[in-house]
This record gives sequence, C-alpha cells and structure tokens, in this order.
Amino acid sequence: MTKFDEATRAIRVDEATYDVCLDPGYSIGGPLNGGYLMAVLLRAVVDASPHEHPVTTGVQFLRVPLPGPAQVRLEQLKAGRTVAMTSATLVQDDRPVIEARVTTATLGDTAPDWTDGPSVAMPPIERCVRLPDPGPESKMTLNAQVEMAFDPPTVGWLAGNPTGRPEARAYFRMAEPQDPDPYVLALAVDALPPVVFSAGALGWAPTVDLTWHLRALPAPGWLTVLGGGRMIGDGWFDEEVEVWDSAGRLVAQSRQLARVGRG
Amino acid sequence: MTKFDEATRAIRVDEATYDVCLDPGYSIGGPLNGGYLMAVLLRAVVDASPHEHPVTTGVQFLRVPLPGPAQVRLEQLKAGRTVAMTSATLVQDDRPVIEARVTTATLGDTAPDWTDGPSVAMPPIERCVRLPDPGPESKMTLNAQVEMAFDPPTVGWLAGNPTGRPEARAYFRMAEPQDPDPYVLALAVDALPPVVFSAGALGWAPTVDLTWHLRALPAPGWLTVLGGGRMIGDGWFDEEVEVWDSAGRLVAQSRQLARVGRG
Repeated sequence: MTKFDEATRAIRVDEATYDVCLDPGYSIGGPLNGGYLMAVLLRAVVDASPHEHPVTTGVQFLRVPLPGPAQVRLEQLKAGRTVAMTSATLVQDDRPVIEARVTTATLGDTAPDWTDGPSVAMPPIERCVRLPDPGPESKMTLNAQVEMAFDPPTVGWLAGNPTGRPEARAYFRMAEPQDPDPYVLALAVDALPPVVFSAGALGWAPTVDLTWHLRALPAPGWLTVLGGGRMIGDGWFDEEVEVWDSAGRLVAQSRQLARVGRG
Repeated sequence: MTKFDEATRAIRVDEATYDVCLDPGYSIGGPLNGGYLMAVLLRAVVDASPHEHPVTTGVQFLRVPLPGPAQVRLEQLKAGRTVAMTSATLVQDDRPVIEARVTTATLGDTAPDWTDGPSVAMPPIERCVRLPDPGPESKMTLNAQVEMAFDPPTVGWLAGNPTGRPEARAYFRMAEPQDPDPYVLALAVDALPPVVFSAGALGWAPTVDLTWHLRALPAPGWLTVLGGGRMIGDGWFDEEVEVWDSAGRLVAQSRQLARVGRG
C-alpha cells in the first residue's frame, strides 16, 4: 500500500457509511487539495458499487474541510446493469463539506474508435521545469507527494511573466513509485496551479463545481496534464484539463468553474 | 408568457416543492429532451434561490420521465452571499427521475476580461440547412419548438455521408419569437443531434451525465451552437457544446458523457 493509497483509505462502517482520515500532507497553502478529497470520496463510492471504475464525478465544494477524521455518506441513486449512480457526501463534525455525484461502470481495455490527439504539444520532459521547493515551513504539502515538470511558458507568471492566457501544462506522477489509477487521476485533474495565474490573475481561486470523466485506465508511467480555459469574465473562469497517459491515450477530462482570486 | 415559458413553469407548493407539468411537445423520438427537463428543474431552483442565475448545472438522468405532472424537490446545500448551491430532484410517481446540482449566482453585464473566440467558424446562416420536417406523426415534437440551421457537413450523416468526426453545429432560436435566456440556453446545450452521429454511430445515445455552465446572459437574436468531442471508445463518448450569442460572446459551455447508441 502506497502513502497515497493509505491517505485515501475509506473503511466501511455499513453499506452507506465509510470512515476516512483526511491527511494533512495534501494541502495547497492551507486547504486540502480538491483532487485529493475527490479520491477519498471515490474510494468509498467504488467500494460500495457493483462496478469497478468512477466514470463520471461531479463535485460541489461547500466548505473547507480540516485534516483529521471525517465520514463519507453514500446514497444509491440507481443500480443498473451497465452503470450505477451514487450520491456521496463528505461529512465532518456532522456538517456536509463536499457533495459528489458519481457514475460507476466497468471500463474495458479496447483501443479508442476515434480520438483527435492532445490539444497542445508538450516539449520533451528534459526541457520542462520543476517548481522551487516551497521549504519545510510551507503549507504547500501537496508538492512533496507529486512530481510535476512544467511546460516553461505556462509557469512564467512565477517570475512575473504570465503568458496572458489561461493555461498550465505539466508532466505528472506520484513522488512515491506508483502506477497511475483512477484515484491518481482524480488528483491529477486538480493538481495544476489555477490556469488564470497564467493570465495574470493571482490569488486563491475557489472552485465552485468540478466535473471529470474517466475515459480509460491509464498505462504506467508519466501522465501529461494539459490545462486551459475558454473565458475569464465577471469574476468567473473555466478550467479544462485533459490527462493523457504514457501510451498516448486520453484517460481523463475535467472542467471546473471557479471564482477569480483577488491578489 | 411564451409557450416555452408555459411548458417550463414551476409552481411553488412550499419552499422545497414545486409542481410542474412535463409538456409532450419537447420529445425526441419518444423520450423528452434532456435540455427541456433541465429548464423545468432550473425554473424551480432559481425561484427558490436568493440569486438570479443558474451558473452551474450538473445532471444525472436516472429514468425516462413521461409527459404529465411531476414535482421538483429542492434541498438547499449552501446559501452564501455570492453563490447558493441546491440539490434538485425531478420526481414522478414518487420515483426520482433526474438528479441535479445547481449553483446559482447573479451575473453582471461586464465584457469578458479574456476570451479566445469560437473554436470553429460557422458559414453564414443562408448557407446552412434545415432538417426535413419529420411530419405530423413524428415523435420528434421538439423540432416544432425550435428553429435550427445546420452547418451542412455536420448533418451529412442524414444522407449517408458522415464526416467521420464527432461534430454538430447549428444556428438556434426558438420557433416562437423569444429572446434567449438561461432556460433557452439549457435547451440549446442539449438540442443538437448526438455528435457521434457524424462519426457514423447512429442510434439512441443515452446521456449519463450532463454539466453546463452559464457564462453570460445572452443578447437577443440567433445563438450559435458548436458541438464536438474528444474521444469515442469502449462504448462511451463525450460531447462538448459551446453556445455563442449574436454579440459574439460565449454564453454557455456544456459537456456530457454518454453511451454510444446501437443503430
């Protein structure tokens, strides 16, 4: 069991209740990373489902949870032969913190019938850049769990040179050796810095809704995580992320709607 | 009040319950159109919200509802100063038919800070094509409510000439004179034929999850509805729709994950 498997473990209490323990090692400047929290929820959902994979996940973030014990409460909405649908709530101190709706199914291992290839080409990994170590006092503890190598222009904002467009692109893998799986993908779709940083809008950018789709089971190796957006306006922005695996296959797609941060 | 306003009316019973009447005039070969059903749900959600606009809507389709009376049951998940979050269930014969999660907020009327323009250029409307009238016996009653003019290659599948790619593009407006509003947009994001038809995969393509975001209030006039997708495989496809208004503004974005139909 890897550290990530341990940190996302959900222990069955009964068919509708799982105990979890939110790990302080996945924080992004204080709050826990949304992708990590989704992975925790999905462990419980899949354990309780007759199907193997979380194919669609839609999440609303109601409150900021704290590290420590919490519960996942499940409600089966539909149990079909092909798909099951579940409502999952992360509850802490008897208050709902995150609401999720998940469709589970069992994906096969067939080649795609049609695909268009990645929307943007990445430079080779040796020309990509790591972010500076935030240091032992940092609250960016997520950085120690994952390894990311960024397409240089998309992190130009760190040096005061934003590209002026919403974008972020990186190679991604767990720091501890671990093949990617659907839970690692839940982390990957929310691991990039907010794409608006590259458009010059820094500051905490709270996500209102995040929906992602598991499209195929990822091959071992680096993931390529491509983030963009279509519009920034009226205090809102969309962030679209595609995750491609080392075999060149689209394995996950996400979109979130979030509020633009204030410096 | 237009026919569409009437067909989507939600009458308050109490703060958590609305009576609705599902109109047979919005069917697509039998089942009612998903966009129409979302519009009905959203009427109730917005009426009960302190905010004016449905900014994010995520929907799971559990069962096929029948025309006739139904109820919308609401649960407030969060009531914040900027956004409220609501769970809404369409119930018929005491069974949940559709589950939705909606974020409401009040959008302003500012110009976008950044936008990239439409992903694909449309030909002028006079070079676009209408679909043949399905005739009075047809179960495609939705066709009489809306006016759509299609980018010709994207409906080549009707004559046995699919483009081989998932795509569908059309100009869209209500048949009865009505300025577009968020409820019309809910209809527009699900009004195109499934994009997989153009890739050669005909047949009923059931949607599992549809999430859409209202990005701005639409200007009067035609809407431009651009549909595409990123991958078809393992019996699943994604459909992405962007809606642009007559002022050239991105007003809605949607993505659905659906099952490929069997001819």
